[in-house]
Amino acid sequence: MKLYDSKNAPNPRRTRIFISEKGLDIPTEEVDIGSLQTRTPEFLAKNPMGRVPVLELDDGSHIAESIAICRYLEALHPDPPLFGTTPEEVANVEMWVQRVEYNLAERVFGCFQNTHDYMKERMEQVPAFGEVARKGAIDFLAVLDERLGRTKFIAGDRYTMADISAQMAIDFGKVVKIRIADDQKNLQRWHVEVSVRPSASA
Amino acid sequence: MKLYDSKNAPNPRRTRIFISEKGLDIPTEEVDIGSLQTRTPEFLAKNPMGRVPVLELDDGSHIAESIAICRYLEALHPDPPLFGTTPEEVANVEMWVQRVEYNLAERVFGCFQNTHDYMKERMEQVPAFGEVARKGAIDFLAVLDERLGRTKFIAGDRYTMADISAQMAIDFGKVVKIRIADDQKNLQRWHVEVSVRPSASA
Repeated sequence: MKLYDSKNAPNPRRTRIFISEKGLDIPTEEVDIGSLQTRTPEFLAKNPMGRVPVLELDDGSHIAESIAICRYLEALHPDPPLFGTTPEEVANVEMWVQRVEYNLAERVFGCFQNTHDYMKERMEQVPAFGEVARKGAIDFLAVLDERLGRTKFIAGDRYTMADISAQMAIDFGKVVKIRIADDQKNLQRWHVEVSVRPSASA
Repeated sequence: MKLYDSKNAPNPRRTRIFISEKGLDIPTEEVDIGSLQTRTPEFLAKNPMGRVPVLELDDGSHIAESIAICRYLEALHPDPPLFGTTPEEVANVEMWVQRVEYNLAERVFGCFQNTHDYMKERMEQVPAFGEVARKGAIDFLAVLDERLGRTKFIAGDRYTMADISAQMAIDFGKVVKIRIADDQKNLQRWHVEVSVRPSASA
């Protein structure tokens, strides 16, 4: 098994944090996105979408999409469970993963892609949309702050995939100045807690 | 159990198709999005994001987000499996669900939200972004057409959640003139096959 990874890209960090939380040791191969190594015919044969991360299995097949890789590893190594175990837990974790992914991660990425200088040559930017995305992401931080006033972690008492997605999105958000507000004490408390876990350095 | 639903909204259709494929009979309550019934304090107590679908359980708790509801129902009623069963299948279905959701469904919605007259009064539209989203959705239809030249369904030989997401997105795409091209014969073949299933009317 081998993970095609890119240390500077936000998406693969979900998978790296997940692997660390599972206590797994999976060899990685760094792919340089900057020099378009994800767009070579060789890499596109692994993932036609031309993105990292990609997990290469021992039979030579590939799994792309960070959360799909996490679900694969969860199925092989169920403990500690990061997607829930009972039907109610599974649904609740997925509900919060979806909320975080669409209302926070996608908006942080949308803001970055449409407003940041780094992306100027790389895609057709629409700065006005980047600002709408920024506002949406900031609005959702307030939802998370309210939630974390009632629960220890985002999906409830246990650390889950929803915390990993939110940690990745919030940490990457700094690049476009999307930050936890000073008065969002619950979200700050949570962010300190996830940031001192050994997986945070992944 | 009760499903808060909206017949005209695209998101809940995933869940309705899924319920039909599982052969389940779940009572529904229609929520009128047009008159902002999803924004009342009563509804926001069920789902603070103010969106349908929402599944109400018999203990009075709620599951929101269409795919989270589907995962709950899959856990209760595993047959026929629509999210895969082996670790490899689970990962492969999730990979294709993610690809379809981000590269097609989100873009169709982005095009609709930012260009359609219906949304003009309802959100801050950025028409230029709607056109970027349209182009991205159309590009991904070519990826699906290529894929479906090699497999019967999107994730492989079996009908799965990935087909449901794609069917919902493509059917809703007509509203903003995002359509399968005349020469995309594989995608056309697949669309006929999913459209003649009884679940298509859900």
